Amino acid sequence: MHLLSISSLGDSQLDQLFARAQDYALDPRSGRDRLAGRTIFNCFYENSTRTAMSFAQAAARLGAQAITLSVEHSSVKKGETLADTARTLGAMGPDALVLRHRQNGAAEEVAALVDCPVVNAGDGTREHPTQALLDALTLRQQFGSLTGRTIAIIGDIAHSRVAHSNAELLPRLGASVRLAGPPALVPADAGSHSIDEAIAGADAVMMLRVQRERLDEDLGDAPGEYLRLYGLTPERLALAAPGAVVLHPGPMNRGVEIADEVADLPGRSLILRQVANGVAMRMAVLELLIAG
Amino acid sequence: MHLLSISSLGDSQLDQLFARAQDYALDPRSGRDRLAGRTIFNCFYENSTRTAMSFAQAAARLGAQAITLSVEHSSVKKGETLADTARTLGAMGPDALVLRHRQNGAAEEVAALVDCPVVNAGDGTREHPTQALLDALTLRQQFGSLTGRTIAIIGDIAHSRVAHSNAELLPRLGASVRLAGPPALVPADAGSHSIDEAIAGADAVMMLRVQRERLDEDLGDAPGEYLRLYGLTPERLALAAPGAVVLHPGPMNRGVEIADEVADLPGRSLILRQVANGVAMRMAVLELLIAG
Amino acid sequence: MHLLSISSLGDSQLDQLFARAQDYALDPRSGRDRLAGRTIFNCFYENSTRTAMSFAQAAARLGAQAITLSVEHSSVKKGETLADTARTLGAMGPDALVLRHRQNGAAEEVAALVDCPVVNAGDGTREHPTQALLDALTLRQQFGSLTGRTIAIIGDIAHSRVAHSNAELLPRLGASVRLAGPPALVPADAGSHSIDEAIAGADAVMMLRVQRERLDEDLGDAPGEYLRLYGLTPERLALAAPGAVVLHPGPMNRGVEIADEVADLPGRSLILRQVANGVAMRMAVLELLIAG
Repeated sequence: MHLLSISSLGDSQLDQLFARAQDYALDPRSGRDRLAGRTIFNCFYENSTRTAMSFAQAAARLGAQAITLSVEHSSVKKGETLADTARTLGAMGPDALVLRHRQNGAAEEVAALVDCPVVNAGDGTREHPTQALLDALTLRQQFGSLTGRTIAIIGDIAHSRVAHSNAELLPRLGASVRLAGPPALVPADAGSHSIDEAIAGADAVMMLRVQRERLDEDLGDAPGEYLRLYGLTPERLALAAPGAVVLHPGPMNRGVEIADEVADLPGRSLILRQVANGVAMRMAVLELLIAG
Repeated sequence: MHLLSISSLGDSQLDQLFARAQDYALDPRSGRDRLAGRTIFNCFYENSTRTAMSFAQAAARLGAQAITLSVEHSSVKKGETLADTARTLGAMGPDALVLRHRQNGAAEEVAALVDCPVVNAGDGTREHPTQALLDALTLRQQFGSLTGRTIAIIGDIAHSRVAHSNAELLPRLGASVRLAGPPALVPADAGSHSIDEAIAGADAVMMLRVQRERLDEDLGDAPGEYLRLYGLTPERLALAAPGAVVLHPGPMNRGVEIADEVADLPGRSLILRQVANGVAMRMAVLELLIAG
Repeated sequence: MHLLSISSLGDSQLDQLFARAQDYALDPRSGRDRLAGRTIFNCFYENSTRTAMSFAQAAARLGAQAITLSVEHSSVKKGETLADTARTLGAMGPDALVLRHRQNGAAEEVAALVDCPVVNAGDGTREHPTQALLDALTLRQQFGSLTGRTIAIIGDIAHSRVAHSNAELLPRLGASVRLAGPPALVPADAGSHSIDEAIAGADAVMMLRVQRERLDEDLGDAPGEYLRLYGLTPERLALAAPGAVVLHPGPMNRGVEIADEVADLPGRSLILRQVANGVAMRMAVLELLIAG
C-alpha cells in the first residue's frame, strides 16, 4: 500500500489514520518499538527541512531509522533517471520510501517500480497528502466534526499541492472549502471568490506560503503591498467567523502573506500545533503502510 | 581487521563472507541486533548515493547506526589533512569507518592511523572491494561455481577501481576475466582484446560506467557514437554465450555504455540483484570486521 | 534545563558532569540504552564536522538517534527567522536540540522558545561550553586537581568562543588562565601578556585555530611568518613548565598556529584525547539534560 494522494485513501483508512494520529499526538512515546529494526528512505529532491525532519522524527519515535538521501550527492547529478534511481533504492530493501520531488506524478512513477510502500511527501504542484492529513487533524482537534465548517485557503492556489490535497480531503470530512488568492495565481475553475469573500464568515483561514521567486517575478508588488492586497492582516481576519483559527503550512514569510499579529495570535494561530500534529500523523502513516 | 583491498582477504575469509552474505540475501532481517549499539562512520569524500546508502542500510539492518560525515561541512575545507581527519574520527570511537576517497591509497593511510576497522568503499582508481564481492556473489548465485566461467569487463578499465578489484577477485574464484574498452581507456598490460573479442563467448558481461567528463574530454564522440563503438548493444551481447548475464555497478548512462534493451533484459540483466546483494554483502563485511 | 554557557552551570552540576564523563571516557559502552528511544536534533548553522559528529556519536552511544538538520536545505534559505525555525523544530518534540550558530546569543534565543533542553554548541564569538568542559576534563585527567595550575590560551582571543568559555570555566576549577595572541586579535581587557610571557612556566598551552580568512585579511603575514611570530614551536613550548601539555580544539592548521613536532609530541600533545573526551562529555551533557 502506498500513500500517493488523498483519493488513494479509503474512508476507513482515513478514520484509522485520524484515530492513530490522535493517539500519538496525545502520547508521542506510545509508538516506541512499533517499527523497531525498520528503515525508511527519506528522499527529498526538493529542499524541505521541516517535512524531512518531521518524517525522520516520526520514524525515530516508532523505533525505525530514517536514512536520508542527500540529493546533492545523488545519482541525479550523474545523469541517472528517476526510474533507475527508484529501482535502485527499492532494491536496497527499505521498509518505506518517502519522496519529495518537483515533478508531478513522481511518487506514482516510483511506486510502480518498487516493492515497498511509497509516501508522497509532495510532488510538483499536485499533492502533499500528509500535509492535508495533518491540517485536517488539527482542524478536527479544534472543531470536533468538520461538518458544516468553512475553510478558506488563500494564496498561490495554482501552484500549491497543499491546497490541492486539502481541497480533496476537507470536503470528504464535511467541510466547505473556499479557494482564493492573487488573480494571477488562482485557476479559473477554483471559483471566483475575492480573498475577502473567501474569508468572510470562515471558521478557519489557511494561508499558503508565497514563493519569493513568484513575488519578484510575477506579482512585482512593492514591499508590503502583498500583505495589504493578498495577505492575512488582523483586519482581514476580522471578516471571518468569531474566533476563527489560522493555519499555515510553513515556512512563513512574515509580513508578506501573513502579519505578525495573526501568526502569533494566542489560541487562534494553530501553526505550531500543525507542526506537532505533522509528526503524529506521519507516525500513523508509516505505521499503517508498514505494519498494516 | 580492515577491508582495504581484495588481496587483504584470505580464502577462508572470502568463504565466510560469501556464506554470510548469501544468508542475508535470503533473509535480510536475520541480522537484526547483531551489531546493536554500534556506530559506523560513513565518510564519503566523493559523491555516491548508492554506496553510502547501501552501507547505511546494511548497518541499520544489523541494528547499528550509520553516522554520515557530510563532506561539504568537513574539515577538509578548513585545510585539515586526511591524516588529522582520520585520527580525529578514530578518536571518537566508531566501531568501523567506511571511507570513499578520490586519492589512491587513502583507506590504507586511514587504517594505519585508527584503532577501528576500516572499509575501503572506493579509493581513487585502485580498489572497491565490496563492489567486487557483491559482483562475485551475484555471479555465484547465477552460476554456482565460477570455475571455468569467463567474465568480460568492458569500459574505462584504466580508471576503474571496480575493474581492478574484480580482476583480482574473480580469478581467485576460478573465473577468467577479459578486460576491454575504448583504446584510450585500456592500459597496455590489460591484454589486447577488442571489445567484441572480449565479449565473444563470455558467460557474463560487466559494463562499467563511463564518466561523462571523460566522454566530453577524451573521447569526443558524437552523441550515440559511444554506444555504437564501445557500448553493450543487443547485437554485441549476442556475441556472448547463450543466456549470458549482464552486470553494471551503476549508476548507468543509458544509451551510452548500455542500451535500454540490455539494461532491462528480463532474467539476464542482474543489475538490480547486484544492488540487493550489495546490502547483504556489506552486512557480512561489517559483521566480520566488527564482531569477528 | 539548558546548557547555554559555562556560567549557567552550578558547581554541583559541574561535578556531576565531570564524574559522569569520566565514567564514559573509561567505558564508552556503559551508557547504552540510557536514552533509548530519544531523539536529538543536531542543528549546525555553521560547518563543524567534528562537533556535529561528536554529538551524533554521543547520542548513538546512549541509544538515542541524532537527526541532523541540513542547513543547505533549511528554511533559513526560504527567509524564515531563527525564532520561527526554533519554534517549529521545538514543536516536533525532540528530546534535546543542539545548536551551532554564527549569531551571538542564538542558543539563548532558541532556548526561550522551545520546551526541550538546548545545548549551545557554539554561538558566534561567545560561548562553546561543551568544548570548555571537555578541555577541563582532559586537563583534570592529566593533573588531577587544577588548583594552582596555569593554562595559557594562545591565538585569536577576540573571536574565540573556545577561549571565552575556557576563561570562564578553568578559574572556577582553580586554574589561572593567561590569554595572549597576535596584538590585533587580543582585546584590551585580556591582560597584556606577550605570547612568550603567557607560555612561560605554564602547565598547559591551549592553541586556538586561526581562521584562514583572518590570516589573509588582517595579519597579512608571509607564509610561515605566523608560526614564527605567534605559533607554538618547540622553542616556544620549551618556555613552559617541564612536561607541559598541549591542547588544540581542532581542526589544526599545521605549520601555522602549531608546529608538527608539537602537535604530535608523544605523551604531551593531548589533542586526540580531547576528541575522545568530547564524546564522553557530550554523553554526560545529554544525559544530564534529558534524563536529569
